[in-house]
Amino acid sequence: MSHDVPVPRRPGLMSLEDALAQLLAAAQPTAGQQQVATLEADGRVLAQDIRSALDVPGFDNSSMDGYGVNRAELAVAVAAGQALAVSQRIAAGQFGPALQPGSVARIFTGAPLPAGADAVVMQEEVEASLDEQGQGLARCSSVPESGAFIRRRGEDIRHGDTVLPAGTRLGPAELGLAASLGLAELPLRPRLRVALFSTGDELVMPGEVAPEQMAPGAIYNSNRYFLAVLLRRLGCEVSDLGIVPDRREATLAALSAAAESHDLIVTSGGVSVGEEDHVKPAVQQLGGLDLWQIAIKPGKPFAYGWIARADQADQAAEPGKAGKAGNTAGRCHFVGLPGNPVSSFVTFLLLVRPFLLRLQGVSSGLGVVPVAADGLPPAIFLPAHFDWPRADRRREFLRVRRNAAGGLDLFPNQSSGVLTSVAWCDGLVDLPAGRTIARGDSVSFIPMAALLG
Amino acid sequence: MSHDVPVPRRPGLMSLEDALAQLLAAAQPTAGQQQVATLEADGRVLAQDIRSALDVPGFDNSSMDGYGVNRAELAVAVAAGQALAVSQRIAAGQFGPALQPGSVARIFTGAPLPAGADAVVMQEEVEASLDEQGQGLARCSSVPESGAFIRRRGEDIRHGDTVLPAGTRLGPAELGLAASLGLAELPLRPRLRVALFSTGDELVMPGEVAPEQMAPGAIYNSNRYFLAVLLRRLGCEVSDLGIVPDRREATLAALSAAAESHDLIVTSGGVSVGEEDHVKPAVQQLGGLDLWQIAIKPGKPFAYGWIARADQADQAAEPGKAGKAGNTAGRCHFVGLPGNPVSSFVTFLLLVRPFLLRLQGVSSGLGVVPVAADGLPPAIFLPAHFDWPRADRRREFLRVRRNAAGGLDLFPNQSSGVLTSVAWCDGLVDLPAGRTIARGDSVSFIPMAALLG
Repeated sequence: MSHDVPVPRRPGLMSLEDALAQLLAAAQPTAGQQQVATLEADGRVLAQDIRSALDVPGFDNSSMDGYGVNRAELAVAVAAGQALAVSQRIAAGQFGPALQPGSVARIFTGAPLPAGADAVVMQEEVEASLDEQGQGLARCSSVPESGAFIRRRGEDIRHGDTVLPAGTRLGPAELGLAASLGLAELPLRPRLRVALFSTGDELVMPGEVAPEQMAPGAIYNSNRYFLAVLLRRLGCEVSDLGIVPDRREATLAALSAAAESHDLIVTSGGVSVGEEDHVKPAVQQLGGLDLWQIAIKPGKPFAYGWIARADQADQAAEPGKAGKAGNTAGRCHFVGLPGNPVSSFVTFLLLVRPFLLRLQGVSSGLGVVPVAADGLPPAIFLPAHFDWPRADRRREFLRVRRNAAGGLDLFPNQSSGVLTSVAWCDGLVDLPAGRTIARGDSVSFIPMAALLG
Repeated sequence: MSHDVPVPRRPGLMSLEDALAQLLAAAQPTAGQQQVATLEADGRVLAQDIRSALDVPGFDNSSMDGYGVNRAELAVAVAAGQALAVSQRIAAGQFGPALQPGSVARIFTGAPLPAGADAVVMQEEVEASLDEQGQGLARCSSVPESGAFIRRRGEDIRHGDTVLPAGTRLGPAELGLAASLGLAELPLRPRLRVALFSTGDELVMPGEVAPEQMAPGAIYNSNRYFLAVLLRRLGCEVSDLGIVPDRREATLAALSAAAESHDLIVTSGGVSVGEEDHVKPAVQQLGGLDLWQIAIKPGKPFAYGWIARADQADQAAEPGKAGKAGNTAGRCHFVGLPGNPVSSFVTFLLLVRPFLLRLQGVSSGLGVVPVAADGLPPAIFLPAHFDWPRADRRREFLRVRRNAAGGLDLFPNQSSGVLTSVAWCDGLVDLPAGRTIARGDSVSFIPMAALLG
C-alpha cells in the first residue's frame, strides 16, 4: 500500500464524494420518451422496462450438432452393440415428425427436438455409417443423461420476464438481446441536449489561424473538441455555441437563449476564484451558481449552477400545454469546468459523466458495475512500477499505463496543461490525499475504457 | 489459483493464439487515406504521423492564479517584511510589459509570464491589500523556488515532435491533443467496408413477424443487430445484405458482388462441420476457405476465407490505374462466425476485433495497451465469488460481473444460446482449459469495456 504522509487537507476544499452527491441530487432525470430503431439505439437509455413476449428458446432444441435419441431405446441398442437407423434429418428452422421407434434423428444446433427424443448425443460421440440400402446408421457407445444437450423451451427467458429494466444503458449485447425478443424499435429516453461554450480571449479555433501565424499568447481551443466527443459518446446532442461574448449583456442573452433549448450548458475556463469573466455573474443573475473547490488533482475549480427557463412561466399559465420531450423541467443545468485541458478532461469523467448518466435516468450503478460514493467502479489493484514521492493535499488521479509485465508505468509529465498524458494513458491511479507511492506498491487503478464509453 | 484437472485437449482443435496469429498474418492493412474533420474522427485510425508545428506551451506561462515575481527582489522585500506593488494584471490571452523593478504582476492561469519574472507565487500564499492611493500591494512570507508554477515554452511538446504516430486509434484525448496543435482535419485510414450476411432458414427479422405470430422453429435474428453495432463501434461502414440466398448460384453472385465493394464479409451461422449451407462451397469456389475448430468456449467453429476480386485482373492489365481507396488489395476477406449468439459475440471480440484493428493499421498493441499473443490485454486478477467445479477441454470465457465487494459473480446460465449473460456481465473470466474454480480463487478478468470500445 501507499504511504501516509501527514499533509493536512486544505480547509474549504470539498471532497469528490460530496461534490458528486450534490450534483446527483440536482440531476432529476429528464422527462419524455421516443421510439427508436433498435439498430440506432447504441449508447442510449431505456425509458421503459422491456418484457419478453415469447419464451426463449421458443421450443426444445438441440444445443449441439448430433443425434436426437430416445434413451430407453438407445440403452437397448448400446447393450446389444447395435446401431440405430437415422430416420430423419432436422436442420435449424425445420420441424421433424415424432421419432420413429427404434431410430434416431440427425439434428443440428438450434433445430427443434422431435417428439419422442429425450437427449442429444454429440456427433463426435457417434459412429455414423450406411447400410447396403444406403440407410444411415448411428452407433453409440454409451447412453447420455436425460436432457443432455437439449435447450428447453423458456429456459433462457420466459414470456413476461423483464429482460431489460428501464434505465438500462444499451450496448451491443443489450441490443442483440432486444432483437432476439423481436423488438425492432425501443422506447428510449430522449437524447440530452448539451450546449458547449468556451471562455477565454486567448482561444483560437483550429483551422482559423495556422500555427505559424498564432499571435503571442494565443492557444488553440482543444477542450471544445474532446468535450464534444465525450458528450457524443454519452448519447448527447451537442450544440457548439462557440466563444462566450465578452460583454455582459450579450453573455446574458446567449446563456438565456441556450437554456431554452438545452438540458445542460457546459463551459470550460473562467471558474477559478480569481478569474473575471461574464459567465459567472450572468448564470448567477439568471438562476443560481455554486463555485466549488474540489480536493482532486487534476481538477479543483468546478462550477455547478442552473438557469431558469422563461417558458416555465408560460407553462404554469397553460397547464394543458406540455413542453417538448426533455424540456419540461424548469431549469437548464450549468456546469463550468476548469480551463486546463487535463483538469477539464478528468473532471468531466469524474463528475459530469455520472451527472449526465443520472440525467438520462441510468439506474444501475451509473454504468454497468456497482459504484462507490465517488461514482467510481470498484477498485482494481495493480502494482506501481514507478515512484511518486511527493504527497499532495488533494486526492490525485495519475495518468498511467499498464505494461506488458502487468504493472503500471507513469506518464512522466503529470502537468494539467497538456493532453499528452491522457492520450498516452490507459487508466488513472486513484491516490488518496496525503499519500506517496513507492515502486511495487499496490495502487487503485481505474481503466480509462470504463470511463470513456 | 484455479485447479488443474486432467482433461486432455480434444485433438484437432486450434488454440486461440494460433487462430489469431493466422488471422493477423492475413490482415494486410488496407491502403488509402482521407482528410477528415478532427471533430468527426472519433474511433478512426491515423494514416500518418502527426507532428507538432508549434511549441506547447507557446510561451512561458503561469500554471496557477497568483503573482509573477522576481525572486531576488522578492527576497529583499520578504527579509524586510515589506509588501510589493502590484504593477500590472495579466489575464490569459494578454501580454504584459516587462516587470517594473520592485513590483509584482497579478497573473492568471495560462497567462504569459512578463519579462523579468522568474517564479509565480500562488494567490493563496499572498496577502493582498490596497494602499491609500488604491495601489494594489502583495505581501509574501517566503520566496518560491526558481521557476515555481511556470510552464516553460515547449515543455510539453516541441516543434517537430511526433505527437501521435500513424496507426493511433483516436479517442477524445487524442482528438483534443490534435486540436491543441491547430489541426482541424486529420489524415485517416479509410473506414473499413464490411458486409454482413446471415444464414439460417429459421431466422426472422425483428419487426417482420410479431412474437405471437412466429412460426414453430423460427427465431429472431439477433446476431445481425449486435454485429452491426460492434462493427460500427470499430469505425466500420456496415452494409447489411440480409439473408444469404438458399440457392447456390444466387449465393455465388451475392458473395462476388459484395466482395467487389467491401473489405470484409461477415456471416454468422453455417460454419459447423456438419452444417450444410451454400456459403462454404461458394467461398471456396470464389477464393479459399479454412474451417477452424478453436479450443474456446463459447466459440469453437470459425471460418476464415477470402474471395478474389474480379477487378484485380483489370488492374494487373492497367497498372497505372489505381483502385479506389481501400479497394486495391486483390482479396475481400471472409469471416464466418458461429450461429449461437453468445459464441458469435465472444468470438467477434476475441478474433474479429483484433483482425479489424489490424486491417485498419492500428499499430500499438491492437488498442492502447500491450497485448499477449492471444490479443488480450494483460490479465487483471480478481477473486471469484463463485464455484466452477466442472473443467472443460476448451479455454473458457465465463460471463461475470464485479460486485460491490470487489469480487466476481457468475451469471448462472453460461449457455451459449442467450445473450442475457453478455448483457448482464461487465467482463469475462479467462479460464485455461482443464481448470476449475473454487470460491476465493484469483482468476483472470477481462473488462468488457476494454473489448467493446
